[in-house]
Amino acid sequence: MDLVTIAIVLGLLAVVYGFVTSRQVLGAAAGSERMQEIAAAVQEGAQAYLKRQYTTIAIVGVIVAILVAVFLGPISAVGFAIGAILSGVAGFIGMNISVRANVRTAAAAQTGLQEGLTLAFRAGAITGMLVAGLALLAIAVFYYYLTAIAGYEVGGENRTVVDALIALAFGASLISIFARLGGGIFTKAADVGADLVGKVEAGIPEDDPRNPAVIADNVGDNVGDCAGMAADLFETYVVTVGATMVLTALLLSQVPQLEGLMALPLLIGGACVVTSIIGTYFVRLGAKQSIMGAMYKGFLVTAILSIPAIYFVTQLALGDMNAPIGGMVENVDPGMPLSEEGTSTQVGGFTGMDLFYCSLLGLAITGLIIWITEYYTGTNFRPVKSIAKSSETGHGTNVIQGLAISMEATALPTLVIVAGIIIAYQLAGLIGIAYGATAMLALAGMVVALDAYGPVTDNAGGIAEMADMDASVREKTDALDAVGNTTKAVTKGYAIGSAGLAALVLFAAYTTDLAHFFPKLDVDFSLENPYVIVGLLLGALLPYLFGSMGMTAVGRAAGDVVKDVRDQFAKDPGIMAGTSKPDYARTVDLVTKAAIKEMIIPSLLPVLAPIVVYFVITLIAGQQNGFAALGALLLGVIVGGLFVALSMTAGGGAWDNAKKYIEDGNHGGKGSDAHHAAVTGDTVGDPYKDTAGPAVNPMIKITNIVALLLLAALAAG
Amino acid sequence: MDLVTIAIVLGLLAVVYGFVTSRQVLGAAAGSERMQEIAAAVQEGAQAYLKRQYTTIAIVGVIVAILVAVFLGPISAVGFAIGAILSGVAGFIGMNISVRANVRTAAAAQTGLQEGLTLAFRAGAITGMLVAGLALLAIAVFYYYLTAIAGYEVGGENRTVVDALIALAFGASLISIFARLGGGIFTKAADVGADLVGKVEAGIPEDDPRNPAVIADNVGDNVGDCAGMAADLFETYVVTVGATMVLTALLLSQVPQLEGLMALPLLIGGACVVTSIIGTYFVRLGAKQSIMGAMYKGFLVTAILSIPAIYFVTQLALGDMNAPIGGMVENVDPGMPLSEEGTSTQVGGFTGMDLFYCSLLGLAITGLIIWITEYYTGTNFRPVKSIAKSSETGHGTNVIQGLAISMEATALPTLVIVAGIIIAYQLAGLIGIAYGATAMLALAGMVVALDAYGPVTDNAGGIAEMADMDASVREKTDALDAVGNTTKAVTKGYAIGSAGLAALVLFAAYTTDLAHFFPKLDVDFSLENPYVIVGLLLGALLPYLFGSMGMTAVGRAAGDVVKDVRDQFAKDPGIMAGTSKPDYARTVDLVTKAAIKEMIIPSLLPVLAPIVVYFVITLIAGQQNGFAALGALLLGVIVGGLFVALSMTAGGGAWDNAKKYIEDGNHGGKGSDAHHAAVTGDTVGDPYKDTAGPAVNPMIKITNIVALLLLAALAAG
Repeated sequence: MDLVTIAIVLGLLAVVYGFVTSRQVLGAAAGSERMQEIAAAVQEGAQAYLKRQYTTIAIVGVIVAILVAVFLGPISAVGFAIGAILSGVAGFIGMNISVRANVRTAAAAQTGLQEGLTLAFRAGAITGMLVAGLALLAIAVFYYYLTAIAGYEVGGENRTVVDALIALAFGASLISIFARLGGGIFTKAADVGADLVGKVEAGIPEDDPRNPAVIADNVGDNVGDCAGMAADLFETYVVTVGATMVLTALLLSQVPQLEGLMALPLLIGGACVVTSIIGTYFVRLGAKQSIMGAMYKGFLVTAILSIPAIYFVTQLALGDMNAPIGGMVENVDPGMPLSEEGTSTQVGGFTGMDLFYCSLLGLAITGLIIWITEYYTGTNFRPVKSIAKSSETGHGTNVIQGLAISMEATALPTLVIVAGIIIAYQLAGLIGIAYGATAMLALAGMVVALDAYGPVTDNAGGIAEMADMDASVREKTDALDAVGNTTKAVTKGYAIGSAGLAALVLFAAYTTDLAHFFPKLDVDFSLENPYVIVGLLLGALLPYLFGSMGMTAVGRAAGDVVKDVRDQFAKDPGIMAGTSKPDYARTVDLVTKAAIKEMIIPSLLPVLAPIVVYFVITLIAGQQNGFAALGALLLGVIVGGLFVALSMTAGGGAWDNAKKYIEDGNHGGKGSDAHHAAVTGDTVGDPYKDTAGPAVNPMIKITNIVALLLLAALAAG
Repeated sequence: MDLVTIAIVLGLLAVVYGFVTSRQVLGAAAGSERMQEIAAAVQEGAQAYLKRQYTTIAIVGVIVAILVAVFLGPISAVGFAIGAILSGVAGFIGMNISVRANVRTAAAAQTGLQEGLTLAFRAGAITGMLVAGLALLAIAVFYYYLTAIAGYEVGGENRTVVDALIALAFGASLISIFARLGGGIFTKAADVGADLVGKVEAGIPEDDPRNPAVIADNVGDNVGDCAGMAADLFETYVVTVGATMVLTALLLSQVPQLEGLMALPLLIGGACVVTSIIGTYFVRLGAKQSIMGAMYKGFLVTAILSIPAIYFVTQLALGDMNAPIGGMVENVDPGMPLSEEGTSTQVGGFTGMDLFYCSLLGLAITGLIIWITEYYTGTNFRPVKSIAKSSETGHGTNVIQGLAISMEATALPTLVIVAGIIIAYQLAGLIGIAYGATAMLALAGMVVALDAYGPVTDNAGGIAEMADMDASVREKTDALDAVGNTTKAVTKGYAIGSAGLAALVLFAAYTTDLAHFFPKLDVDFSLENPYVIVGLLLGALLPYLFGSMGMTAVGRAAGDVVKDVRDQFAKDPGIMAGTSKPDYARTVDLVTKAAIKEMIIPSLLPVLAPIVVYFVITLIAGQQNGFAALGALLLGVIVGGLFVALSMTAGGGAWDNAKKYIEDGNHGGKGSDAHHAAVTGDTVGDPYKDTAGPAVNPMIKITNIVALLLLAALAAG
């Protein structure tokens, strides 16, 4: 069987797993009538939101697809469409599983913690496997069609395959930034608004059915944390694996192993689908009843099994693991380390074994980022405890300590990424870095499973509260949800970490493309060129501006929620008395409109910024400086964005769990002054960790991809 | 008269102004006995703190001086000592004026707003002129000694003058980072601690004499906002003007106008001393009684008069304004723009007129930054109003909106700096950027005057409260203080903005030095070199880590204050009853110890990071990559630090004034829920704007200077 066909079969396996497991989940008991009624309201709201969101995105998408078709040709437009549609599908399926699993998890938690965990985790695993499987299939099938059926060559002068893969990534990125941001604004506007008007003003508990915003809050978990996240990770997967293949096509077009090298990233993804599926069956509580421990077990099994699996597919694709790859060919610069006095690498080349080591490095980086994220957001360690303690002296010190922790939390991941860059580059140059990133993303099935489990348990808790279920159920869902805060932070740290590596790969693709399209232009990317500094500064500005817009949008939309709820309370005193039902749909509708209105402008920022910067600098200082500034912009976005995203996502998780830690009876427990301060910190952390922070990841990628497309369009025009 | 001698005379003029005006200020009425008693306590505390701080710094300073002497020779060690000592002197004098002017301002405010303004502003002007004058004298006299007396040449192979100027800047930077951070931790630990335990816990107003931390709070204004700020701006001046001279010596050593070019930065500084002195006399209230308007008048007069003054000294130094400078000489790369098809600049060179235009650009950037800062921190504009409005819905939304504004506030200054870089570079290459930065700093006398006025009025308000003066006095000092929040933010934006330009100059000095010391090494500063990316990422991490340490230090020290005050209240119930006096000195002493302990480790971070990064990367990937990573680190610090510093300083100012805006009767006024939320925002903003944010500026410079010294030491060793 052909190598790419194997990858396609493995991708289909993930889809099969998804279907089989969803039958199991949907077959579980759905609880009482009251529970199902609440779940139906959440489901209806989520579907209504996604429908409207995708309608809006579709308009933008069709316009962009036409532009792609005009500037880059019909095949690229098809690639764009596939990426865009499947990114949307990934989010849509994730949401649909999640809104059905929530009520079943609440019902299962009546039986026991293990039962609740199994159901919620399976729901997450379905989303995870479908994200990884669809992403793998999108690239593999499209690549198979282009090369095996349409007969385009990879190594030659024809750029069809490369351009089509970039367009595919662009489609995925464009949809995912809208989905991440729109969903992020929805979920946090509803959450913050519901908390402000419910907990703070009316003095009713979280998830109280008298609060008209309570259904919107639960809808938000599904459209933001689940659908938005799934679209984002789909994008990250497609861009990373796609970029690795593009860079291979650009740099190694003349090596004899080219065919195997093009298929290898797909095979690594396929192999890890199998290990991820096996891993899901190991997520079981041990004797200590540690939920995080159960998650770790699943992840560790996947990671360890992936080692032989990746070795096997690497050998399958390349044959002799010790045969040189990069160094066999003349006139090809595989981006080799500048080895002055014979380093440990083969001078001028690398072997299959080196690529295998780089893949292991990717697995190790993933593991380290999970571990660091747990340290910064888990309730057992210094950071969260220090925020909880600082809550004793008030709102101000809680926020100060939270901000300090959020900034500190950038250090270790940065050092891990830096070490990863250095080691991978020493082993196999830029291609090595690309393989590190690919192996990270190969684990996406498992990592997304850990994440998508979070909103299910969060919703289950809400349903338990609203349906007046036994307090012990809420206790169990709360325990499951606390771990969810950490796993949600893990995925974001993982996505942004892989973006750090992928951005280097995309930048390498940019410089290689530039040399290909404009061979006569001597572009100076040196830090000594002030236009490079200008590009770095403007690039680093983007995440700040983008983050600010996201935070403001949440504040504004949350304010609308507060007004709507106040209005409902004022017009019908029966709501607070519990004699009449609030109009949940009205609030959902309001947040829907607000979120969609607010997501447009920030999403266009990373699309337009590269184009504007290129043309303005070209006008002022000539085309070669325009390209230099644009290239620097791409790296400025990652240098600035890495820290903004890491600090926001870790800080938000830490604030949330500091509140949970106090609610567990520390520092005075629920209702104490420390608890009030911790609620403030949690509110601040909400848009940090679920709106602005995670949206930086697709923002970085989209900036890079737009630059690549701009190059191709300029060359064609 | 020799050009440098003229600059020295003008520098002395600033000192004379300082002495004459301080006699006027000290001659003003010092108020009632009670007022003088309080002022004496503040004065005593401030002197005790500075004494201990300088003793600690002296130990570090002597060790470093010995290292400088060993590695770079005795002349550099003398330069280091001059920079270090005068930086300390600038802070010391500023503090001494401030602690005497506070009580006199309170007394003058009894007569009228204009009287209070005049006294407080004069006190600020003394500090401003002494900072600018001493900084100018430090460089000019040292340079005069080296060239005219000791007879060292500038243009030749001998590096004595260049190394000595760098060592001078290092001395200033090292002291200023300790002073900025130590003072910043002191002032905010006392402020936050006093607020938490007084306003929040005990329910007594700000500046209530029953609060044992109240004197420490007032001491903090003087040692942080005044002494720390003065040391910081002294450093900024010395580094910027020094770097311009160093770059001139390195790049233009063979042009005929070298002597005039070396003196010109000093002459620009001298000319602006005169215009700044004139400007101070125009700070008077107009018909509208607008305090900010009075400040603007003074600044505008200075800026406008500076245009002909700078033209005059440029002509004096260079003679024919249209004679080419850079282009006259072969084999010299003055860092010219890559002009493909004849741009507006002389190909390969620039004229005196171009340098004059670059200086005007520096004046314009300063004006724009002041205007942008007022927009983001003034109570009349959207940003502060939006924070105030968001306070209505609680602590959480106040902080969210404040963070959003703080991030947004980075955009316009960044665009101004980027435009400045591009225009200056188009006019006269890297030297043009250096002149832009020099002209910015030439206005330091006036800008520091605007800033140093702030802590005086802040203290005056505290004294008015504690001495039970008429409520109308407090009203006037509050009006003066609100403007102080904006002018304090202005100086920080200005300092970090100039650092953005100066860092490019320092980086150019680094690359030129590198080529000089290691001519055989082919260092690749291109963004395509992964070690450059590694350097950028590690550099951008530094401000995050540094900021986190500063914020945590404030939180920790403030916690100690809270405990101490609680203890005093518990042991002596007479304090709250007003029958016995609290032990103010005990609290001052406690904060002193805490601040000094906390300042050491973060201050060493930027000193050690460049050294560690160079050696580690050299070990892994060879010396040329070590130098590449180190160079990239220098730019990473500015790319990361610019945004951290701008967002923190503007955000903090906006939070503070949002609180003041509510206290003026908006959104419910004092005591309302919105006010409580605004107090939380103000508390969060405190370490942002007065500890972590402003200390980023000397941090950036010190990283750059250590790299230059490392180069010299490696070359010598």
